[in-house]
Amino acid sequence: MTPFTEISEENLDPSDWNAMRTLGRAMVDDMIDHLRTVKERPVWQPIPDSVRAAFRKPLPRQGTAAEDVYDRFKGSVLPYPTGNIHPRFWGWVMGNGTVTGMLAEMLAAGLNLNQGGGTQAGSLVESQVIAWCKEMMGFPAGASGLLVSGGSMANLVGLTVARNAKAGFDIRTKGVAAAPRPMRFYASVEVHSSVQKAVELLGLGKEALRLVPVMPDMTVDMKALRSAIREDRAHGQAPVCVIGCAGTVNTGAIDPLDALADLCRDEGLWFHVDGAFGALAVLSPELRDRVKGMERADSLAFDMHKWMYLQYEVGCTLVREAALHREAFALTPHYLEHTPRGIGGGDLWFSDFGVELSRGFRALKVWMSLQEHGVEKFGRMIRQNVDQARHLERRVAAEPALELMAGVPLNIVCLRYRGRLTDPSAIDALNKELLLRLHEGGVAAPSYTVLNGAYALRVCITNHRTTTADLDLFVQEVLRLGKELE
Amino acid sequence: MTPFTEISEENLDPSDWNAMRTLGRAMVDDMIDHLRTVKERPVWQPIPDSVRAAFRKPLPRQGTAAEDVYDRFKGSVLPYPTGNIHPRFWGWVMGNGTVTGMLAEMLAAGLNLNQGGGTQAGSLVESQVIAWCKEMMGFPAGASGLLVSGGSMANLVGLTVARNAKAGFDIRTKGVAAAPRPMRFYASVEVHSSVQKAVELLGLGKEALRLVPVMPDMTVDMKALRSAIREDRAHGQAPVCVIGCAGTVNTGAIDPLDALADLCRDEGLWFHVDGAFGALAVLSPELRDRVKGMERADSLAFDMHKWMYLQYEVGCTLVREAALHREAFALTPHYLEHTPRGIGGGDLWFSDFGVELSRGFRALKVWMSLQEHGVEKFGRMIRQNVDQARHLERRVAAEPALELMAGVPLNIVCLRYRGRLTDPSAIDALNKELLLRLHEGGVAAPSYTVLNGAYALRVCITNHRTTTADLDLFVQEVLRLGKELE
Repeated sequence: MTPFTEISEENLDPSDWNAMRTLGRAMVDDMIDHLRTVKERPVWQPIPDSVRAAFRKPLPRQGTAAEDVYDRFKGSVLPYPTGNIHPRFWGWVMGNGTVTGMLAEMLAAGLNLNQGGGTQAGSLVESQVIAWCKEMMGFPAGASGLLVSGGSMANLVGLTVARNAKAGFDIRTKGVAAAPRPMRFYASVEVHSSVQKAVELLGLGKEALRLVPVMPDMTVDMKALRSAIREDRAHGQAPVCVIGCAGTVNTGAIDPLDALADLCRDEGLWFHVDGAFGALAVLSPELRDRVKGMERADSLAFDMHKWMYLQYEVGCTLVREAALHREAFALTPHYLEHTPRGIGGGDLWFSDFGVELSRGFRALKVWMSLQEHGVEKFGRMIRQNVDQARHLERRVAAEPALELMAGVPLNIVCLRYRGRLTDPSAIDALNKELLLRLHEGGVAAPSYTVLNGAYALRVCITNHRTTTADLDLFVQEVLRLGKELE
Repeated sequence: MTPFTEISEENLDPSDWNAMRTLGRAMVDDMIDHLRTVKERPVWQPIPDSVRAAFRKPLPRQGTAAEDVYDRFKGSVLPYPTGNIHPRFWGWVMGNGTVTGMLAEMLAAGLNLNQGGGTQAGSLVESQVIAWCKEMMGFPAGASGLLVSGGSMANLVGLTVARNAKAGFDIRTKGVAAAPRPMRFYASVEVHSSVQKAVELLGLGKEALRLVPVMPDMTVDMKALRSAIREDRAHGQAPVCVIGCAGTVNTGAIDPLDALADLCRDEGLWFHVDGAFGALAVLSPELRDRVKGMERADSLAFDMHKWMYLQYEVGCTLVREAALHREAFALTPHYLEHTPRGIGGGDLWFSDFGVELSRGFRALKVWMSLQEHGVEKFGRMIRQNVDQARHLERRVAAEPALELMAGVPLNIVCLRYRGRLTDPSAIDALNKELLLRLHEGGVAAPSYTVLNGAYALRVCITNHRTTTADLDLFVQEVLRLGKELE
């Protein structure tokens, strides 16, 4: 070590603030234009090798002018995103983001406050957003909540509370192995993989997650579920939690949530609802009834970056009993003790309700967007997507060359091109290639799944930019490609 | 349900793009001015009741013009952040953020790509950032990595891999309870609370985390650690993992990492390093030796939103054996199967390496910032903070009314005002009040901890805007307040 010497101090702020302002304005202009004209571009395009090569350069030792770094972004990154900002992207379950959401992320990053807690405006913003979420979801005012990175974390938080609250002993201290009887969680075979991931992470092992068959409409078979619980009890296991799906990822099926709530009440089980996108149907007066029972959950997971169309990352977990939620996560060493006044003050520390201690200000985009649009507009957008899915369902049903692969209970349509083919593996192969050509052609981007062993194109409409005309164009393109491939 | 009717389609895009462009430019201008003039404002200020009241309004049903929503932000949020963007904020361990980081967050939010994986530019950006992280940290090119929300998640990811890799059976399937002998993790009593939180979450129970005493310099007592491991083996427990601290949260102490690496090699244990902020010392040629041994870790957790000064949230986990990393998290149901071409193509799916499936584009701000400043400048900034801590140490040592509470191995100075007081509880009380008045006066914002039972003001300099003059002003203010309170 060299001894201390007074050094000439530098920082990471711009040496020329006005040049940075000019650059920032140009970025806003470019991004606004990019979003305004998105429909004029392909949904997606492959990345040329020449572009890929730029990403193999080693760690930069010396700096580069911010303007030049931005040029690299414009050349190598901007033209090659996932595509989910486009009106004809319906892959997996992705939202588009909004212009206000984009600008709110900049404001949040400028403030760069730490949303772990304390006395600062971010705590008030997130508290209000959570209060609004409870209002939206029909949860009691005394419930707790946390904004998280998305559905995976929202499920993990809810299931952690379930595990700890139902253990019947101090599981945070003793661990899962101290359970007198093995804990069991239940869901349908259609439940999202993040639930299995959570159960594994929690040390329960995937064998602790019992997957129950579904009915032909892809909702959980209640009779099979009751038998499974009875059987497990008889075998000395401890049923702990049922996970209901408010919108399965494959087809949008909604489990009978009221019946699940009754069952959990009768059996003394924790009722968790994975409502990643489907929970948001509650915002539409016409759709609200479909998720009835969800408001009776002990914990509810949902995403705002899916069917509330906001930017990644933002999901939410609500927990009916705030004390149980806090008991599952709170941990306060000396260096985090809350103070009566000052920055470390305030009653509410979000870090007591989840995995993260330092937390970003994802609440701001929700706070600004709900005020800008009002919740009724979100309800109308969601209803519009469901109506669009029904339009697509009718269009597919009317085309002899196409085949619907599942019911359309919400906003997901599973279909395939069949033409005159009869051999199942030939049909699968054709549709796999058809999907890739759809992507590569840049016309439309559904994703895919397998239903009862058959490959299906999967159109999931959580897209505020989609119009009915976009879906018509999609049908036309599927027919064209199908004929070409047949 | 009303039957399907063709609806007049709407979306969440601006009705007037030019007005939104004007608003976006005004936001950039305002935020740039806000950051340019940050040192002219108090570090922090309390939130008036009149401002708090606005946050109790119920869920907005109808929309409000974006300009008006922005006015609410300017009135109720912007003036009341945590304060960590200010040159005299040294509380907890927080970075400031940078202007480029702020703008990069806007660009990322505009693209809104899903960084779960697939063929899109974000995958290339994050892959390159991880390659750069491996280069920075001295990890082999074949190691794997993931950008995560911060230190808590970075530790959780590393310890999950440790648990699963060392279990010796299929723990993802069978769960923790199937372990033939109870698994044990080791760290010093100074280890960060997020490690305990991770061990609890993983179902091991906090009893599985054995906390070992420290030496007077706050580093782990190697002899005690060796005894603990030996003792546990003798009692039929299974030592699995040692967590070394590269910079403890209380004092910045760095465990003897090379010795820990040797021990783990000899004992067949997983070596995880929590280098939340301290790991970044490697970027300074003068400091690099202090974290030697870190590059031998099986997994390494560190944060870019701390001592790389970037915006929340961004941390990183590196794992030496990529296959073990992937085996701990990968789970691929039909609806996520990777395709040979198209959007769902590509070999690398980040969702296979961590908790989250949908992931935001936090890689962009790292990618842009490393290019703009070059890694050498980050090294100089880190060195500058360490030099500033030593300056403060000398200033405190030279003031008879002040007392140093611990050594200053890195960038953290723990001190208190003592004056002529001798009663320990009176000294504690005075310093507690002194801290609150420092915050409320807006001059400086250290945080606090308890060391050997005594309350300490804690100055943690992970701040690119701090100058030596800011620390001198802090000393002067502590002396003034101390005299006032004595």
